[in-house]
Amino acid sequence: MQEIRIELAERSYSIAIEGGILEDLGKTIRSFQFSRKIAVISNPVVHGLYGNVLAQSLTDEGYELTEILVPDGEEYKTLEWAGKIYGELLKTQLDRRSAIIALGGGVIGDLAGFAASTYMRGIAVIQVPTTLLAQVDSSVGGKTGVNHPLGKNMIGTFWQPSLVWMDLDTLRTLPERELVAGLAEVIKYGVIRDSKLFQYLETNRDRIMNLDQQALLHIVKRSCEIKADVVSRDERESGLRAILNYGHTIGHAIETVTGYKKYLHGEAIAIGMFAEAVLSNRLRYADEDDVHRIRALIESYGLPVAIPADIDLQNTLSAIQIDKKAVKGKLTCILPETIGSVKIATDFTAEDVLWVLQHTQAPAE
Amino acid sequence: MQEIRIELAERSYSIAIEGGILEDLGKTIRSFQFSRKIAVISNPVVHGLYGNVLAQSLTDEGYELTEILVPDGEEYKTLEWAGKIYGELLKTQLDRRSAIIALGGGVIGDLAGFAASTYMRGIAVIQVPTTLLAQVDSSVGGKTGVNHPLGKNMIGTFWQPSLVWMDLDTLRTLPERELVAGLAEVIKYGVIRDSKLFQYLETNRDRIMNLDQQALLHIVKRSCEIKADVVSRDERESGLRAILNYGHTIGHAIETVTGYKKYLHGEAIAIGMFAEAVLSNRLRYADEDDVHRIRALIESYGLPVAIPADIDLQNTLSAIQIDKKAVKGKLTCILPETIGSVKIATDFTAEDVLWVLQHTQAPAE
Repeated sequence: MQEIRIELAERSYSIAIEGGILEDLGKTIRSFQFSRKIAVISNPVVHGLYGNVLAQSLTDEGYELTEILVPDGEEYKTLEWAGKIYGELLKTQLDRRSAIIALGGGVIGDLAGFAASTYMRGIAVIQVPTTLLAQVDSSVGGKTGVNHPLGKNMIGTFWQPSLVWMDLDTLRTLPERELVAGLAEVIKYGVIRDSKLFQYLETNRDRIMNLDQQALLHIVKRSCEIKADVVSRDERESGLRAILNYGHTIGHAIETVTGYKKYLHGEAIAIGMFAEAVLSNRLRYADEDDVHRIRALIESYGLPVAIPADIDLQNTLSAIQIDKKAVKGKLTCILPETIGSVKIATDFTAEDVLWVLQHTQAPAE
Repeated sequence: MQEIRIELAERSYSIAIEGGILEDLGKTIRSFQFSRKIAVISNPVVHGLYGNVLAQSLTDEGYELTEILVPDGEEYKTLEWAGKIYGELLKTQLDRRSAIIALGGGVIGDLAGFAASTYMRGIAVIQVPTTLLAQVDSSVGGKTGVNHPLGKNMIGTFWQPSLVWMDLDTLRTLPERELVAGLAEVIKYGVIRDSKLFQYLETNRDRIMNLDQQALLHIVKRSCEIKADVVSRDERESGLRAILNYGHTIGHAIETVTGYKKYLHGEAIAIGMFAEAVLSNRLRYADEDDVHRIRALIESYGLPVAIPADIDLQNTLSAIQIDKKAVKGKLTCILPETIGSVKIATDFTAEDVLWVLQHTQAPAE
């Protein structure tokens, strides 16, 4: 089993990565000395596939389970659903020493993490990510949140999990579209921090798409190592951690203006990564070759790069301006300099962004 | 001006106490380098009295104000109202470097603190408590929260303010019932940590009730010092901090079963302090003389000591058992040993609590 450690003083924790480890979770958490009552938060799809194995593993160790199912979809990552979760936790009398297990993708992880961080002023959460996106990104680093009609993840906390438990076998049941969306974040790690990972993605496309276990283990592990390193240096995103937002300034805005419906998160981020590479080139940071290489890799995995034809670019710009990464009204963007290295840039205008949106938008049909 | 420092590493902050300092807040926060946009959260009553002075002080320094008014009352300390606040903050584009100023009593402080801790994963909050209860208790120590139909403060965070700014002159407009409710928490500090403060309250009743500035400054300052000391040693209530809950195990349950309507928080805590002193005596910790002294001091300020005749004691017991201070199903209570010293006790049963409730309940009329 591969283990990666996130070093955050008294909030340090481990990430475990391997195929077939879901059934070992119950035994593993005995040493954490949680209360006997544990809540599993999941959605009906993931719970149907893996709920029984997890439940068995926990009840075998004497835990009493409360299973809370949230409908599948980003539109349920809301304050209202957090409220329903609190109600269930209170009804079954989970206490301050209880733990919540988040079994699912990013939506479940973010929502369960937010509920854990605010229930009785914070209880433990264990992330069991079952999508590639959640494994390489959202389950690691302690960001939790729910969406607001005026913006994605606007409500949330920093709340580190007690353990992240990644069973690579869960990727076998993942729809290909979701697998590919997760790969967008892996590409991101290559661009911001690791040219070798970028190259690995260029040369191992078929192995990855065929779910070769060694290839998956390599890219998941490398992604988690990069994220662990960045988060350990800057837990609350006061500096370095912002580089993880490459592709996200424009990507989030696209999710907002399309109502979180048209694209999966990774797809929107793929569009954002290309657009932000173009912005970087416009500002003379990235050269044209690197922009082409980024575009080619994104497209080779079947991910989109063009801003959709039917969205209003002024609205998209407004969504960028209200984004929580903007400080004192100033736009911030993570721009690649070369493959493997990025800078945190603020030296550009709304007009620059608009120009990029115009030049990367698909033509109207 | 009296200044007390809460030492919590990078989360350290100051409490300022004095009459007439509200108008100096704008100048004072310049050194914090917040964004220009600031939100003031208050209720219509307090805002009507002090909103203009505060607004002037802030606009004089160039801040742009968003004023958010929440109706007056504990029943508005909800997740729904937090949601409304998020909407206002987003509409006016408060960013991560913006601050929220909580102008009001405990409800406003808890709700605004919770909103600040969860807006964009946490922005700064400045507490400007205008009630005695908020000054001596809720504004200091970083507990935030909203109520849930199944229990008070069940949803919340630990989120330290950047500054606590106490203008003692605001107590002049406080209804006497609320002043007295605040004194319940001052009595609490005497019982748990400071027999001299307890004695001061016994011998200076008239000066305090007549709002003598020196007497108020003394009791507010001493209360804040005790709270600062306890919180600095145990920020997240993993041990010592629990002693601040003296009177609260039973007091909270009474608030819950009376729907937060019959009593002010301090009144319920007064009842809880007496009941828990009786429990302490039953378990042979506190002697009878000290129980009488606690009862006499509470009653001398016109605070209640008897469990109301019309509540169901089994329901009250259930409310105690679901309280977030209970861990692994075990009841916990803070019990006085002598005046000035308490212990964290778990060596009692539900039957002991029920006996105490029965023996401190007022007779039916």
